[in-house]
Parts: sequence; C-alpha cells; structure tokens
Amino acid sequence: MDHPPKLFLEDLREGMRFTAGPLRVEAQEVNAFAARYDPQPFHLDEAAAQDTLFGGLAASGWHTAAMTMRLVTEALPFAGGVIGAGGEIQWPRPTRPGDVLRVDCEVVRVQPSRSRPGEGWATVRTTTLKQSDEPVQILTARLLVPSRQTPNTR
Amino acid sequence: MDHPPKLFLEDLREGMRFTAGPLRVEAQEVNAFAARYDPQPFHLDEAAAQDTLFGGLAASGWHTAAMTMRLVTEALPFAGGVIGAGGEIQWPRPTRPGDVLRVDCEVVRVQPSRSRPGEGWATVRTTTLKQSDEPVQILTARLLVPSRQTPNTR
Repeated sequence: MDHPPKLFLEDLREGMRFTAGPLRVEAQEVNAFAARYDPQPFHLDEAAAQDTLFGGLAASGWHTAAMTMRLVTEALPFAGGVIGAGGEIQWPRPTRPGDVLRVDCEVVRVQPSRSRPGEGWATVRTTTLKQSDEPVQILTARLLVPSRQTPNTR
Repeated sequence: MDHPPKLFLEDLREGMRFTAGPLRVEAQEVNAFAARYDPQPFHLDEAAAQDTLFGGLAASGWHTAAMTMRLVTEALPFAGGVIGAGGEIQWPRPTRPGDVLRVDCEVVRVQPSRSRPGEGWATVRTTTLKQSDEPVQILTARLLVPSRQTPNTR
C-alpha cells in the first residue's frame, strides 16, 4: 500500500488532478448488481437487452456510479475521506461487461464553508472513461474537506 | 404481481406521483456494498464511524442511490422501463442500518425529444424518505420515455 500525504482544504487548488484504475467490469457483477438494485431486462439478460435502446447488456448507471466511487476512494487522498453532499451525474453511454474503467478527477472549485468553520467544500469533476477513452459517466460532486485548523481533524 | 397499464410519453402529466416501499436497510448489506464500492471506515465499522462526521455507521450515498433505484423500478410504470440519462442528486442526511426507506416520485416536466422522434424526456424528482419522514436523498433525473407513436415501442 502506498500512503501519499493526506490533503486538507488548504492544500487543494483548482486544476489539481487525480486518477485511478483500471477496474474491469465483470458480467457476473453486472447481473448481481442489477438483480438487487435495478432489475430491468437490459441489465439482466443479453437476449432481452438486444431489443432495447441499449442494443445489448448494459450495467445499471448506478453500478457505474458505484464502481466509479470505488476508484474515487483510491484516487483522492483527502483528509477525512471522500464525503459527498451530492452532485450532478450524466451517463453519456452505457458501461458494458468487459469494459475496463478508470477515473480522472479534477478539482474545479475550493471554498471554505460559511456554516462549518474548519471545513470547506471541494467541487470535483470525475470523468469515468472506458478503454476506448470514451466517457461513460461524468459526475460533478461537492465534497466536504476538513481544514488544517479543524479542532478535530479526524 | 400487479401489472398496471404501462405509461407512454403522452400519458404523463406534470404533477403525477408514484410511490414504492418499504425497503429495510440491512446492516450486512451496508457493509457488503461499502466493502466493494466505498470502503471507508464510516461505512464499514461502527466503532471507527463514531469518530467521524457521521457519528456512527452510515450507508454509502451510492448504496442509498442503488436502493432508491430498486424502489423506482417498482414505482414507475413507464413503457420501456426506467432509463436515465443523468440528473442531480443530494444526500441531506445519512441512511443508517435499520432505516426503512420509501420513495415518492413526482413528474416535474414532460418534453418530446427534438433529436429522437417517437421518444421524449420525463424529468422525475424522487425523494427517498426514511421512517421519520426525513429525506435521505433527493434525485431529479431525466428519463427517456417512448411515445405511443414510436415505430419500435419496445
């Protein structure tokens, strides 16, 4: 395991980038995730999926989001971890079994919090790319990051 | 199983509401989801979680999103299924093991597609509520819905 120094709010700059991957999308996991959380034919069955908008088996968008989060936890060395309050998500194209994903995270805004002294917000745009370099997800999320001056730095 | 008539774009009106639930959040599943997709202490270990912003074990926001999707597939009787292009997500408070979730989905906008004749977009705001009636997630998503005039109605 590699332990880069943890970054606090004061260490973050707009334009900083972090990456992680690869993560291979396994057909069995696509099915298992869909069976539990998004049981629709185009996520469950190759033959049934042919006849839909997807034209073949596709991962649930929420599975793409979950796999992206896995990579984001590896990419971002933020003190306190990766804690999101929300964001904006787009799925420009489906993730398929056999795809190999990676993430490119860019800090697009850094702001001290008005209501929480000792903490602040980092807006991070995470692009999830497949092996062809085409994006399967673009997520712009607001993450809570502790300041070095936090009484409890966690 | 109950099979309500499937709704096409022409059947949708702003203000229409659909609900589903309950779904109980199981501690074991919170841990399993986090171990795979969001392996951070506040999602994995009760003792370690005490000392964090969450003040106790909390489900990954993406797990809340996934459980919400399960309920949305039960709530929305859209022809062609529930196919999202993206949206905006907020987690105003954490989901905890033992919580019981339900969803309230409201159609907030209906638009024919300009680029895809025979299809259109429904903007649906889904509020995920816990047993106390407090929201744990608010998702405003753009869903692709076929028109009755679609050549291939899927």
